[in-house]
Amino acid sequence: MEFASMDLSRIHILRVDPGEDVLAAIKDFLKKSGIRQAVVLGGYGTLAAYHLHWVKHNRIPTENHFRRGEGGIEILAMNGLVVDGEPHIHTALATPDGAFGGHLEPGCIAYVLCEVFFAEVEGVSLSRQRRAVDVEGMGEGEVSRLTFG
Amino acid sequence: MEFASMDLSRIHILRVDPGEDVLAAIKDFLKKSGIRQAVVLGGYGTLAAYHLHWVKHNRIPTENHFRRGEGGIEILAMNGLVVDGEPHIHTALATPDGAFGGHLEPGCIAYVLCEVFFAEVEGVSLSRQRRAVDVEGMGEGEVSRLTFG
Amino acid sequence: MEFASMDLSRIHILRVDPGEDVLAAIKDFLKKSGIRQAVVLGGYGTLAAYHLHWVKHNRIPTENHFRRGEGGIEILAMNGLVVDGEPHIHTALATPDGAFGGHLEPGCIAYVLCEVFFAEVEGVSLSRQRRAVDVEGMGEGEVSRLTFG
Repeated sequence: MEFASMDLSRIHILRVDPGEDVLAAIKDFLKKSGIRQAVVLGGYGTLAAYHLHWVKHNRIPTENHFRRGEGGIEILAMNGLVVDGEPHIHTALATPDGAFGGHLEPGCIAYVLCEVFFAEVEGVSLSRQRRAVDVEGMGEGEVSRLTFG
Repeated sequence: MEFASMDLSRIHILRVDPGEDVLAAIKDFLKKSGIRQAVVLGGYGTLAAYHLHWVKHNRIPTENHFRRGEGGIEILAMNGLVVDGEPHIHTALATPDGAFGGHLEPGCIAYVLCEVFFAEVEGVSLSRQRRAVDVEGMGEGEVSRLTFG
Repeated sequence: MEFASMDLSRIHILRVDPGEDVLAAIKDFLKKSGIRQAVVLGGYGTLAAYHLHWVKHNRIPTENHFRRGEGGIEILAMNGLVVDGEPHIHTALATPDGAFGGHLEPGCIAYVLCEVFFAEVEGVSLSRQRRAVDVEGMGEGEVSRLTFG
């Protein structure tokens, strides 16, 4: 493990409008605002369609499973990080039948409300670097590693 | 989409006591503290009973489905926003049988621990306004829109 | 209910590496950084194994149910609080079969990515104290109560 201590500069509140793609709206916001690094504090609202991915197993290298669906869906939470202007976000969703969720992909379409919150952070330069790992019980390969510059 | 960049003034930590209604306690806290706008950073703990709602479909106008239940329930997360002193919060809950969750309604009763965290924000005036929309594939009607003043 | 208004000092970003125990890494981070009180803003990534607990019912005194499992698991969210250097964290997890989650125990092993975010808070001294309660419908006993000094 490794950690960095940073200063919060500003809080940003993003409203994604009905029919808009949530991840595309987040990328548009990051481009227009020029924000390079931020903690995704949370997000909630509703979706009309989702597209997520999940890891398929716990061995290296990873493989992903993708799935799309439609309907009236509640967004319960979003957690993630923006590094070098690139968002990486996981989200918890639900219908009355139960909760589900995974890695937010393009194709999550906002229904009547979708608001996402970011804490811009500064003082340490965050980046992601490919790094070879060999982990007992998982195998060996490359993973993306958050690096504190 | 639209966004606003704001300053964080203070972090507020709310403890909801056993037997108290979570949403009522949050509203009481907002009234007593005079906080008008805040990001709901998170919340966790346990519930003795829940009352949630979910959207029923992905067409406009919306319809909601409500459900209550009792038991030993873990609160996994809360995400939301306080605008004009009014909280709008979604929560992820769980029992050993799995996770569920939706829009937090009156009737979520704290069991032995319930703590909720708020980031008060200032510099831009948040409000919610009814706005007519016509979205391809969803239909037309009024939705509540977060507005940055 | 009771609340405290505090100042945010710094944001801390923790990277937990593949094969590491998430809770052990968090405790190591808290020890090395000297952080005594913080809001757990969020956490996301993937796990190779989990160990959680849930409350068994909604009566006092509490009883807990524990369960372990393995596989490729997405971390959707983490919410919690660090008091007196001790973390208390709930997490929402998921596979393609749905979401689950509960109280984070030792034995949650990071798979290829795990990042956790903390907002260090100051100005009020947080502590946890055992307190006798007698709640209608729940019974009587001792609970751990967050106290604002």
